[in-house]
Amino acid sequence: MSGNTFGTLFCVTSFGESHGPAIGCVVDGCPPGMELSHADIQRELDRRKPGTSRHVTQRRESDTVEILSGIHEGKTTGTPIALLIRNEDQRSKDYGNIADSFRPGHADYTYWHKYGIRDHRGGGRASARETAVRVAAGAIAKKWLNERYGIIIRGYLSQLGEIVVPFMSWESVNSNPFFVADENYVEQLEKYMDTLRKSGDSIGAKLTVVAEHVPVGWGEPVYDRLDADIGYAMMSINAVKGVEIGAGFSSVTQKGSEHGDEMTPQGFLSNHAGGILGGISTGQDVVAHIAIKPTSSIRLPRKSVNKAGEQTMVATHGRHDPCVGIRATPIAEAMLALVLIDHALRHRAQNADVECPTPRIPGKIQG
Amino acid sequence: MSGNTFGTLFCVTSFGESHGPAIGCVVDGCPPGMELSHADIQRELDRRKPGTSRHVTQRRESDTVEILSGIHEGKTTGTPIALLIRNEDQRSKDYGNIADSFRPGHADYTYWHKYGIRDHRGGGRASARETAVRVAAGAIAKKWLNERYGIIIRGYLSQLGEIVVPFMSWESVNSNPFFVADENYVEQLEKYMDTLRKSGDSIGAKLTVVAEHVPVGWGEPVYDRLDADIGYAMMSINAVKGVEIGAGFSSVTQKGSEHGDEMTPQGFLSNHAGGILGGISTGQDVVAHIAIKPTSSIRLPRKSVNKAGEQTMVATHGRHDPCVGIRATPIAEAMLALVLIDHALRHRAQNADVECPTPRIPGKIQG
Amino acid sequence: MSGNTFGTLFCVTSFGESHGPAIGCVVDGCPPGMELSHADIQRELDRRKPGTSRHVTQRRESDTVEILSGIHEGKTTGTPIALLIRNEDQRSKDYGNIADSFRPGHADYTYWHKYGIRDHRGGGRASARETAVRVAAGAIAKKWLNERYGIIIRGYLSQLGEIVVPFMSWESVNSNPFFVADENYVEQLEKYMDTLRKSGDSIGAKLTVVAEHVPVGWGEPVYDRLDADIGYAMMSINAVKGVEIGAGFSSVTQKGSEHGDEMTPQGFLSNHAGGILGGISTGQDVVAHIAIKPTSSIRLPRKSVNKAGEQTMVATHGRHDPCVGIRATPIAEAMLALVLIDHALRHRAQNADVECPTPRIPGKIQG
Amino acid sequence: MSGNTFGTLFCVTSFGESHGPAIGCVVDGCPPGMELSHADIQRELDRRKPGTSRHVTQRRESDTVEILSGIHEGKTTGTPIALLIRNEDQRSKDYGNIADSFRPGHADYTYWHKYGIRDHRGGGRASARETAVRVAAGAIAKKWLNERYGIIIRGYLSQLGEIVVPFMSWESVNSNPFFVADENYVEQLEKYMDTLRKSGDSIGAKLTVVAEHVPVGWGEPVYDRLDADIGYAMMSINAVKGVEIGAGFSSVTQKGSEHGDEMTPQGFLSNHAGGILGGISTGQDVVAHIAIKPTSSIRLPRKSVNKAGEQTMVATHGRHDPCVGIRATPIAEAMLALVLIDHALRHRAQNADVECPTPRIPGKIQG
Repeated sequence: MSGNTFGTLFCVTSFGESHGPAIGCVVDGCPPGMELSHADIQRELDRRKPGTSRHVTQRRESDTVEILSGIHEGKTTGTPIALLIRNEDQRSKDYGNIADSFRPGHADYTYWHKYGIRDHRGGGRASARETAVRVAAGAIAKKWLNERYGIIIRGYLSQLGEIVVPFMSWESVNSNPFFVADENYVEQLEKYMDTLRKSGDSIGAKLTVVAEHVPVGWGEPVYDRLDADIGYAMMSINAVKGVEIGAGFSSVTQKGSEHGDEMTPQGFLSNHAGGILGGISTGQDVVAHIAIKPTSSIRLPRKSVNKAGEQTMVATHGRHDPCVGIRATPIAEAMLALVLIDHALRHRAQNADVECPTPRIPGKIQG
Repeated sequence: MSGNTFGTLFCVTSFGESHGPAIGCVVDGCPPGMELSHADIQRELDRRKPGTSRHVTQRRESDTVEILSGIHEGKTTGTPIALLIRNEDQRSKDYGNIADSFRPGHADYTYWHKYGIRDHRGGGRASARETAVRVAAGAIAKKWLNERYGIIIRGYLSQLGEIVVPFMSWESVNSNPFFVADENYVEQLEKYMDTLRKSGDSIGAKLTVVAEHVPVGWGEPVYDRLDADIGYAMMSINAVKGVEIGAGFSSVTQKGSEHGDEMTPQGFLSNHAGGILGGISTGQDVVAHIAIKPTSSIRLPRKSVNKAGEQTMVATHGRHDPCVGIRATPIAEAMLALVLIDHALRHRAQNADVECPTPRIPGKIQG
Repeated sequence: MSGNTFGTLFCVTSFGESHGPAIGCVVDGCPPGMELSHADIQRELDRRKPGTSRHVTQRRESDTVEILSGIHEGKTTGTPIALLIRNEDQRSKDYGNIADSFRPGHADYTYWHKYGIRDHRGGGRASARETAVRVAAGAIAKKWLNERYGIIIRGYLSQLGEIVVPFMSWESVNSNPFFVADENYVEQLEKYMDTLRKSGDSIGAKLTVVAEHVPVGWGEPVYDRLDADIGYAMMSINAVKGVEIGAGFSSVTQKGSEHGDEMTPQGFLSNHAGGILGGISTGQDVVAHIAIKPTSSIRLPRKSVNKAGEQTMVATHGRHDPCVGIRATPIAEAMLALVLIDHALRHRAQNADVECPTPRIPGKIQG
Repeated sequence: MSGNTFGTLFCVTSFGESHGPAIGCVVDGCPPGMELSHADIQRELDRRKPGTSRHVTQRRESDTVEILSGIHEGKTTGTPIALLIRNEDQRSKDYGNIADSFRPGHADYTYWHKYGIRDHRGGGRASARETAVRVAAGAIAKKWLNERYGIIIRGYLSQLGEIVVPFMSWESVNSNPFFVADENYVEQLEKYMDTLRKSGDSIGAKLTVVAEHVPVGWGEPVYDRLDADIGYAMMSINAVKGVEIGAGFSSVTQKGSEHGDEMTPQGFLSNHAGGILGGISTGQDVVAHIAIKPTSSIRLPRKSVNKAGEQTMVATHGRHDPCVGIRATPIAEAMLALVLIDHALRHRAQNADVECPTPRIPGKIQG
């Protein structure tokens, strides 16, 4: 593996630079016979698309996906599904001034030393633009998980800077440009973002993603745990610096008598585990939280070095999201979907014949 | 992959149940020609060994490792190194009473539904006993990284319940049974643990692991990022519920002007990135933090269900660590070592020829 | 892995159906800094292109490749190189009559039962058209192997039906449409093929591929042997039914005193091993032979069954190669290149530091 | 992957040198709930054991396997099954004289250059002794395939030197020390071998392996074809120089009208395909043939070089099989079983839901 393929049985191989001709991926391992249309994928891409509000980058990309293979008469054939998204709005000139300097917080310095060559335009391969293909591939995974198991995967922005936005309803999430789960916070967030944008600075965020109706028994017990694979998947998203499952870092101060989720025939009494025990799904909601760092591209000048190793100052004037967390919800959902479909297929491979004599207790928390 | 192999070029394949005949692993991919003795591995195992203080499980395991292959005349040959640790102190009778019930917070319920069969004794494969083989394999990785690149990997307990223990010195860490980096806290911790143990309850913890002298340029840029692989590795450790790189969840409230580490020819001015940008090492210290949940095995009775799906109560009276975080430091170090050696080898494969014209700036923070 | 990715460190992920919009691949793992132009790839594709003589299929495909990523200012960047070839001459109507029947010798019946759905047009994914992407990816591997190690990979048609064509010179191979290594046989072959074509039948062939200047020490010793990977690679080519390394099936009747290649300080005295001992390259020419079955698509009517399971007759009237072996030489070369580059990179990963005190003996046979 | 793991879903990770403390493997991915006893594995090992007749090596190894994990109350648990075989009869002194020379036809020279270090005793890791673990792992695969699908995997020696032994009956195979399928040839073979042994030379052989009752639809269509994986598996066996599927190299001289297997509702009319079309099983017998080179260790002196690169002569006087093909039948069967179980699991992962409307035609040839 050379690092651009995600998954073991449902594999996504990604390619493309921010300012090259195109980005795209090959999705290998999708079971045959599922109806899949262009719209199924485009719908998810549109949720992530730049330029949808003043709070996100103004880069104009239609992000129109072309399906190159793997579909016959509207259905998946079981062969690789190749997806292609042409780049359109590539203002490479915006990046001329950083060709020779390393932007702080960016992968410029590390790419340069790793490869000795880099496509500096828009971050090249390190650009968050690559995440569009994750969303496209994730759309296929989401659909299959939903049709086959009734699984619903959704996420929301649970914190922006110091502003914690509690969960109110899923309906709220899609009604506002911040993906927060309580629309009453929108005005506060807009003011905050307007001030921030004027200041030339950026801010971090926290997202929460939830998968409902995951069957009990998915995940491998030692290394390829469901939570380990979620840790890997989430941390592979640009700008993510932390991942939690269920109670996450709150577990540090919890007692065992508080953390361990009690069980009754009517269901679990809590979900501190975040739906995973011993690396395997419990049948409860799978819950993950991620920390997203503030955008590194800011207008404020910062100290750096150039290719000659000399001191320089860098300020970034391209079109950038002041909070990359805002558009990251569809990406986090996609990554969770990719993890789950992989484990769904693994489970079928190894445990298709298992008949467990014990009744499954409901996954939802009992009130 | 069936989930019991870690790594792509430096692969550890683990086997064994807590109360079966043995645990062990096969380490495949270690470069040839490195001196490796039994003591090199045993030393690390002894750091993790149970029964070393009253604050950890009293199970008596000598954890003596046998090297079965891959060494010739005291040196690695490049062929698989098989390591075997016989189980000795298996009080299976301790577990008779839980054969038919599912312990809250444990993998009992999930294993049972996944496999339809399970070795319930001591958690079987889900037992933290499996982590001994990680420590053994990690010892090999650590040695190679140190000899070849001068890398030093160390960790410490940075928080136990509400007690935050700041970093004072590495010398402190090995001088106390808690692996804290300031021995002045030891008395407070001992009192806390004694009270906790009497109460029959358990507590969570937070660990910090650091790798020094990692060269710039290790890690893949998209999925197999260095941080993604650390996320995967750490989350695969029993009881871990959260992983942070560098600033981690603190990034949520940081501004871009604060988070992005400025660079000077004399070095970076901070390390919020935790030594990783765009998934690739920066040359600074690689820093990760993990959240460890409280032990699920506690003496306090808890609600659960049995195999028949009926309500039951479970209290665990075996020999258990009241804080699994205490003995987890060597494990977290081992996992970090396994991630780093894998990326070291990948880097050699793909980038062995790279000559970068730019001088590397010092990894250590400039005062 | 879902079966459409070749390689472990230099990975080719292939997609596309014969009569869909396009075929292509993602090449992941190419080291950075190698000059790579469109022409480097197109040249190899043109060698395999249909319609170049009357002895091969008259399907008209320009097979023009587009490079979508991974190249910056004429050099590989170390990121995935995506290659796209649009399909042009898709006479799907040719295949209307076989939509409901299974052609003998083809994958129709097996795909149908495996997937329950299939893109029947031109064999869909099972079409030899997929091999174009192997040739494109192989061109990159070939170039790197040549520039970095001086390796030359070439092949020729060594037998067509009963006509054995001995090796005379490499110059001959590229001067005739059969890829035979002695142009004196061309007239005989043309007559044979003309007669065959008129008869409506097809014929098998044997190819030989040779890699010169492979260093000693490439290949893993147990499962991922160099010869095992060549066996896998060659057998994955459509219509291949047999693979030999060096003496191959002649070894069955050889004595040990004949087969084992003697060594002198001036070089090996023979090469029955085909350049591989214990799965590892010896420094001699790596030599493989493959058996290619006769084209299954023939005009002669044959017994088969239809989707309803009823008896039917099938005769194929599309445009087909009467001997698929003729155009297969570039494909076999490409597969050998893909195996070698993968082992080159693995070797660098694990054995980059090895310094062997023993002088290497010349790989070429001493006269 | 570092080359010592076989399989993707049913993975065998092998370790151990010929004259080290032990050999063994970890089998990961075996579905849970299958009854598995020590005897199930030992029985297959005994078929391969050295010292059973005067025609094979006189090394005395009981090859007693110990199961270290993965079995609970007589059944597989779905967790890794570790198998250990201690080495007993290690006459390392036999190898003292070759420590500094490279035996022609052996991996001595290639290991030395690859690793710069080698365990020369008995070939170390390159020894055919490693194949014992394949047979042990294959026994598990065989049992599962038989219990779950009724698959029977058997092989026989079809040629020894110039002596071709046609197939008469499976009963014959187990009644003679040569594994030939017609016991009337035994006397001729014994005479041949006695003469050969006295001469100090060795001879090659050809084996045939057959899997009956393989369902239609197993195998991936492009790279991980069933035949490609068989090619890889067979070529990974020590001393194998060629692999054929079905008609194999006979395909070269066949016409399409002869090779393509016609189909009728009552079954296929022939099996030139060897049970595989387009990389996917047809439901007919899967048939493979392999060429095994003559033993390289012979008493006749041969030219070679030593570690200093100087001319030397090597004659081998240890205990060696004069025809390694004789004991290779259980190994080839094991490798075929490992390939098939892997594809069985893959098929369940991806195609578990497929319902094909077309009736399957019988796999057996119609008379």
